[in-house]
Amino acid sequence: MSSYQNITGKELRDLARKLEFTGVTSGLALGYVQANLVVLPRAQAFDFLLFCQRNPKPCPLLDVTEVGDAEPRLCAPGADLRTDVPCYRVYRQGELMNEPADIVELWQADWVGFLLGCSFTFEGALLQAGLPVRHIEENRNVPMYRTNIACQPAGIFHGPMVVSMRPMTPAQAVRATQICTRFARAHGTPVHLGDPSAIGIRDLADPDFGDAVTIRPGEIPVFWACGVTPQAAVMQAKPPICVTHKPGHMFVTDWKDVDLESV
Amino acid sequence: MSSYQNITGKELRDLARKLEFTGVTSGLALGYVQANLVVLPRAQAFDFLLFCQRNPKPCPLLDVTEVGDAEPRLCAPGADLRTDVPCYRVYRQGELMNEPADIVELWQADWVGFLLGCSFTFEGALLQAGLPVRHIEENRNVPMYRTNIACQPAGIFHGPMVVSMRPMTPAQAVRATQICTRFARAHGTPVHLGDPSAIGIRDLADPDFGDAVTIRPGEIPVFWACGVTPQAAVMQAKPPICVTHKPGHMFVTDWKDVDLESV
Repeated sequence: MSSYQNITGKELRDLARKLEFTGVTSGLALGYVQANLVVLPRAQAFDFLLFCQRNPKPCPLLDVTEVGDAEPRLCAPGADLRTDVPCYRVYRQGELMNEPADIVELWQADWVGFLLGCSFTFEGALLQAGLPVRHIEENRNVPMYRTNIACQPAGIFHGPMVVSMRPMTPAQAVRATQICTRFARAHGTPVHLGDPSAIGIRDLADPDFGDAVTIRPGEIPVFWACGVTPQAAVMQAKPPICVTHKPGHMFVTDWKDVDLESV
Repeated sequence: MSSYQNITGKELRDLARKLEFTGVTSGLALGYVQANLVVLPRAQAFDFLLFCQRNPKPCPLLDVTEVGDAEPRLCAPGADLRTDVPCYRVYRQGELMNEPADIVELWQADWVGFLLGCSFTFEGALLQAGLPVRHIEENRNVPMYRTNIACQPAGIFHGPMVVSMRPMTPAQAVRATQICTRFARAHGTPVHLGDPSAIGIRDLADPDFGDAVTIRPGEIPVFWACGVTPQAAVMQAKPPICVTHKPGHMFVTDWKDVDLESV
């Protein structure tokens, strides 16, 4: 597995396409931008595109395919969204049906693929700056929480913002904010820091998704908008069908993290 | 007219709504974000939203309305896109038909309004930083040029990027780039500086739109993506109907220029 750390995004996609790799992509193809995948029929795609446009922190759009086209031409020319994700999730009416390794048979002529930026990008930049990323230190999943921050609704899509949390000192939080300013397309700057109850979080030790992590003396919790937000909005809207990546099994693009600066 | 310099965006919109103001908005309601308007039927709206998402420098989305809803709820709650622009342009099959002062009778239940960021925002920031904005000094329209830079196509929409040009010294161009980094939603950083022929411009003295301006010794031309780009793409696509603002007669939002930082 560690041999996949230093391969390119395209090489990792090719392994996924050949079903030689079906695992989690965290820490692999280092330096390449990884992306959340949401696939919806055209009938729901306009509302979802609007939802992303209105909520850029939880839903930072990297690439959206033409109707029926499975190739993300901007971020990975030649790639195929039907085969190049290590593992998929298929939802019908908001219910998880199965977790196939490809969606070639399932794909329809009216489907649209959305690729959204992911926290791996800014976590790489935080680590390079010597800032702590506690869940990586502790080898856990990042803790995620539902908040009382309402997303801007769009058509059939609405719901609360889900946030991820990373503990750090206040000075480190300032430096992290400065770094994340560059990554508007990977969730951008924190949405909150300090008192969890101010955004409707009751207990940091009991995350809604992922695992709790240690908060050390002198540290405060720092909260970023999270890519689970659009998935939750899609599940709540109960579209006839929706395909996503399986959590942690991301689509890896040809873009480099360092190129993901704001336009 | 100068009495409108220091009123709010809402006050200027109310004057437009009552037909008491039908003029150009440049220099009015200073400090409020002004926006380009494009209205399209839902049948073309998804492709246009995609076009904007793929070409954020010429087409920086500020707000997109729900289908049939004329209220831009994010940037101007309570406003009405059918009445609050000082003057409109109505195009059928890409041909200019007329320039009404409102579109109340015309508006259809399947229409979607798009508001796109405008160069007034970053020009204000350049002036505050003491940088030259030559067309304002010379009381002309900004010079605009078609380039050989192709926009990323999306469905029925495609075409070349149109740029605006402001001459400045190389050191000023660096400072301008630094300032415009903050304004991704108002065309962002320059797309080119120096040699015009490198982006397909033959003669700076002969702009495709607007007026030529003086370039002083020691200055280079600095080029920004321009809001005429999406209008040109719409005209070329010849949708059955499209409504825009009349050039210079912008929609003024409730947002302040200083709040238009990248997320």
